[in-house]
Formats: sequence, C-alpha cells, structure tokens
Amino acid sequence: MASRTIRLAVVAGDGIGPEVVAEGLKVLDAVAPAHDLAIEQATYDLGAARWHRTGEVLPDSVLAELRGQDVILLGAVGDPTVPSGVLERGLLLRLRFELDHYVNLRPVKLYPGVTTPLAGATPDDIDMIVVREGTEGPYTGVGGVLRKGTPHEVATQESVNTAFGVERVIRYAFEQAQARPRRKLTLVHKDNVLTFAGDLYQRTLRRVAEEYPDVTVDYCHVDAATMFFVNQPQRFDVIVTDNLFGDIITDIGAAIAGGIGLAASGNVNPDRTAPSMFEPVHGSAPDIAGQGKADPTATILSVAMLLDHVGLAEAARRVEQAVSADLAERAGAPARSTAEIGDAIAKRV
Amino acid sequence: MASRTIRLAVVAGDGIGPEVVAEGLKVLDAVAPAHDLAIEQATYDLGAARWHRTGEVLPDSVLAELRGQDVILLGAVGDPTVPSGVLERGLLLRLRFELDHYVNLRPVKLYPGVTTPLAGATPDDIDMIVVREGTEGPYTGVGGVLRKGTPHEVATQESVNTAFGVERVIRYAFEQAQARPRRKLTLVHKDNVLTFAGDLYQRTLRRVAEEYPDVTVDYCHVDAATMFFVNQPQRFDVIVTDNLFGDIITDIGAAIAGGIGLAASGNVNPDRTAPSMFEPVHGSAPDIAGQGKADPTATILSVAMLLDHVGLAEAARRVEQAVSADLAERAGAPARSTAEIGDAIAKRV
Ligand SMILES: CC(C)[C@H](C(=O)O)[C@@H](O)C(=O)O
Ligand SMILES: CC(C)[C@H](C(=O)O)[C@@H](O)C(=O)O
Repeated sequence: MASRTIRLAVVAGDGIGPEVVAEGLKVLDAVAPAHDLAIEQATYDLGAARWHRTGEVLPDSVLAELRGQDVILLGAVGDPTVPSGVLERGLLLRLRFELDHYVNLRPVKLYPGVTTPLAGATPDDIDMIVVREGTEGPYTGVGGVLRKGTPHEVATQESVNTAFGVERVIRYAFEQAQARPRRKLTLVHKDNVLTFAGDLYQRTLRRVAEEYPDVTVDYCHVDAATMFFVNQPQRFDVIVTDNLFGDIITDIGAAIAGGIGLAASGNVNPDRTAPSMFEPVHGSAPDIAGQGKADPTATILSVAMLLDHVGLAEAARRVEQAVSADLAERAGAPARSTAEIGDAIAKRV
Repeated sequence: MASRTIRLAVVAGDGIGPEVVAEGLKVLDAVAPAHDLAIEQATYDLGAARWHRTGEVLPDSVLAELRGQDVILLGAVGDPTVPSGVLERGLLLRLRFELDHYVNLRPVKLYPGVTTPLAGATPDDIDMIVVREGTEGPYTGVGGVLRKGTPHEVATQESVNTAFGVERVIRYAFEQAQARPRRKLTLVHKDNVLTFAGDLYQRTLRRVAEEYPDVTVDYCHVDAATMFFVNQPQRFDVIVTDNLFGDIITDIGAAIAGGIGLAASGNVNPDRTAPSMFEPVHGSAPDIAGQGKADPTATILSVAMLLDHVGLAEAARRVEQAVSADLAERAGAPARSTAEIGDAIAKRV
C-alpha cells in the first residue's frame, strides 16, 4: 500500500488542454510508485465546452469540491467562441482569487539543447524564477464603465495593492532567493509612474530585506526589465513583481527560454489554506487541438512543480531530469507527437 | 533669408541629455539650410540639476513659455539622487499631459548593419510603428494611499480611459497604417482581464475600422505580444496600445532593434493645439555621462521625426538616410565618440 495519498483535481479544459494533461498524468503515474505515492483523481468538467452546454463557468458547488482536494492540475481553458474575459475572469482568475493563490510561480529556465531566439544565449544565461503576485494589483476586477457606448464613455480599472498582499509575496520571494546559489532578488515595478503602488512595494522590500541580509536586492522598471530579458537575461535570479507585470514578463520569459510549449507555472497558496493549482502557461490553442501536435512538456514540468509542492522533492527532480534529458535529445530530431513526448518522458522517470 | 522659421525649445536635461542633444542640433543645423529652414532656439533648464538647485520641477511660467514654441526637443532628465517619480510625474508626464501629447509615436525598425539580439532576424522582419496612447490609461496619476506605513495600508492606481481619448489615438493609428504598404493595425491590450478598458478599445477599434476597409485589423494580448516581439516580430506593422502597455512593448522593441541607443520617439499633439515634443527613448544614463560614450543616434532620429512633424518630410528622409548609412558602416568598426557619430551624420545630410 502507498504510504502517501494525494487527492488530485484535474481540470483538463478545452483545446489542447486534455491532450497535454493526459501526458502530465502519464508521467505522474510513472513516477508515483517509486515514491510510495497514490493518486486519488477527480476530474472536473470546466471551460468553454461546459459554458456552451450549460452557461455555467464555475458553479459554487464545484468550487466547494475543489477546495476539498489537495492540489489541482489544470490544462487550458478557452475558445474563440466564448467572449473574452468570461472564462478568464470567471474561472481562471476566480480560482486564483478564491483559493488565495497569492504566489504565481514561474521558472524561466533554458534547458540544454533547447533553441532560444536570443543569439548566443546559453543555459547559464537564462535561469531565473519569477514570483508574480496572484491575488491583487490590476487583476482585482475593480473598475467600471460609465456612459457606455456614448462619446462620453469612461472606463476604469483599478489596481489595488495592500500591505498584507505585498508583504507576503515579497517574503516568499526572499525565501526563494535565499535558497538559490546567487541569492539575488529583483523587484520589477514602475514606481516612477505608479507611485502609490510602487512605493508600497519599495518600502516593503526594504523592510523585509533587513531579515535577509544575505540576499542582494535590486530594482528594475518593468520596461527596462523586458529589455534586459532580451539582451541581459543573466541579470536576473529571482524576480518579484505585481500581477500584471508578472503576466507580461513571464511571456517574454517563455519566449527566451524556448517557447510557450515549455513554460510551467504554479498558482500557489503557500499557507495551504486551499489547494494550489499547477498549469502550463500556454492557452488552449484551438488551432492545433486534436492533432497530437501540442507539446506536453510545460504540463509535465508543471507536474514537477506540483510534486515539489506536495513535499515530494525527489520525485520532482526525477521528472525535471527526465524532461531535461528528453529536451537534450530533441535538437535536430524529427518532431514527435504529444503522446510520444509523454511516453518518452514517462519511460525515463 | 530662410523661407521658414521654427521656434524650437530645447530641454537638454541631465546626464547624457546635453551630449546627445548637442549632436541632434548639429544635424538639424546641417540639414536646415538646404530646406530654407531657420531655427529660433530657446533653451530651458529643467531636470535634476534645477530641482536640486531650486526645488522647482516645472514652473508654470516655463510651461507657459513652452506652449508658445513650435516644437520641443528633449534629451533626458533624471538622476538617482532625485526621488523616483518627482521628475517623471512632475516634468515628463506633466508635459505630455498638459501639451496633450495623445500620441506617443515609437518606430521599431532594424536598420541594415545593426546587431539585433534575435538570432536570424533581418531588417525585413523588424519594421513597425507603435502608436502608444499618451494622456490617459494607468498614467493618469489617479489613485492614492490609505493607512500608509501600517499593516493595513492600501495603495491604488487607476487606469482611466475615455471614448474621446481612445478614439482619437485609434484614428491616428489607422491613418498611419493606411499610409504603409502592409496596411495592418494590431491592437495590443489585455481585454480578457482589464475587461472595462479592453472592451472600450475593442468596440472603438471595430467602429473606426469601418472607415478604413483597406486596413487589416488584428488583436493581440499584451503578454503574447511581448512574446511575438521576440519570436515573430514580422507579425506587426502598426500597433495601437494603451499608455502602460506601450511603455513596456517599446522597450522590447528598442531591444530587438539594436538597443536603446537607437530608439527615437515623438510625443505628438496631432491637433497642433500645443507643441509636440521629440525625445530619445533612453534615460539620462548618469553612469556614462560626460564621457562622450553616449550614442546620439536616438536623438538624431528623433530630430528626423521632429522634421516630419513640422512638415519637412524631405529633410526628415535625408536625416534618416544619413543615419542609415552611418549605421551600416558601424558594424565591426571601432567605437566612436558621441561627437564623432554626430559629426559623421551631420556631414552626410
Ligand atoms: C488567461 C489569463 C487570465 C492569464 C493571466 O493573465 O494571468 C494568462 O495570461 C496567464 O498568464 O496565466
Ligand atoms: C520616464 C518614464 C516616465 C517614461 C514612461 O514611462 O513613459 C519612459 O519610460 C518612457 O518610455 O518615455
């Protein structure tokens, strides 16, 4: 009998979601036995398909069930036939906010053998972790519209930032920085323009920094940071940033580290008051859905992050190493299908 | 006697500002005679130095004088000894807002011979114009702080978007797109999260598009756009976007087009109710100030944009061609000083 059971909620979603999630689960099943791990899996039908069928985005009863799970694996949701924002705000962001995923953890790492669009960049140059705030900032949904559709329309969006929210994510980022060899933490913001929010981040950073004297602290405006991602990525070790800036820079991060097919993420509730959720950064890519063309690597790396989160660091390292070995072999080789990549990685773990 | 006189306000500013502006003016003086252009120059002492000396950022009397000029050339302002935001909000953004610079025009163009960090990218791949909104969005300064310095602090920033402001910048972008061979306009926003503002941009885009049936219209989320800048820049022709997204993507634009030393910009008031202002995208770079190391090319290209704005398109093309020829010769050649580059370009025009 397995010594450890985790209750895993699976939200495969739309488009390529189910395909990549199948491979993520394949790898999880492959690595579990050696670590005495049993998986109790519950699948949840959420996303564009359900919305079209029933009009439901995230029923309260489903949210309540999800709360009872240990951890969530999400593929991708969305479809061009659903109005923009419905699933993003109503499902993805609602989960992040309701389950208090205040850390959106996104490694940006160039694996050996992977092609980067940056001339001359090597794996030594691109190895950072972005700690993106996940529960406030411009993502709150606060705002509104006045005189809609008239020449006098006014539309507002409000970025709300609290000492509570900023401090906890900065603290988490310091912990991450302290655990890495370079011990460098860079705040990315735009404090010269967004002066109220920027000042709160800056003051909090400086205050918390006193507790981590061995961590080097740096600051970079978001515009300059995007430039440095392209021409000096080695500048960064751990980055802490707000919800919107984190969204943007992690997509450049994905681009420089070999593409969105490889970018993993965790929506983490470090206090464990609710399940954390792991998902590839990519979307549902309806244009290639059902063709076995999607790269499941981002999902498989998200499974590694999930294993880390549930305390199975050794299993997580095995998955990462299997991915790394597989990526090193891909260079120049003929393209494989989604399932072939999953099989190959599962065989290695 | 010259057939045309322009009153030019020069704000050289701090750090490398005066050095690069001197070269911009050198090129302007060189090109003027052939186009029967006389320049009536007034210099304004604004920036970190004045703030340190007098505590003044932008006195109302100076603003009133600037209003009376035809056009402004700005170098760079700022200094690490000035608190973040003082000069940005009090001088740069105040000028943009008071002078109604609702178009922030930023070409992203890879000139032949210039090294880009993107492997394999050629000048054909990187040739776009970003039309960044300049007078609203998250840059309004609206927002505030409650219970500052306590564990219950709340800091807000509000993005304010109006039908009036959004429509005029979108209209301007359509005009730009229509004048270019590809006739493609991409809206960059984040309408799936910032639903109120995004919806206003989307509805306005679709409505105005009916008047420009020959322009192809596209949409891209800002996070995806930053990725495409790195791995598919040829996707873009003209981009229209909000103030903050424009700030961010034009820095990646600068990076992929050879660096911040080459990126020009115009803060344009297309209705000509106040002078427009042209400036390099880079900052005051105090670390290299006074050493003759700064690249004046961005300022010289900003002078070309200025000439375009005052109706001297032919003179503008001459400056651009001189820059292009100079850039083509730089590859592999020993580095030249700020003044040497300015001299070389001035000689060519
Ligand atoms: C789909 C969208 C709501 C989401 C975000 O903006 O956070 C996505 O871009 C991401 O990065 O996970
Ligand atoms: C200095 C700052 C206020 C400015 C901006 O954010 O617009 C700069 O980054 C720019 O792009 O011109």
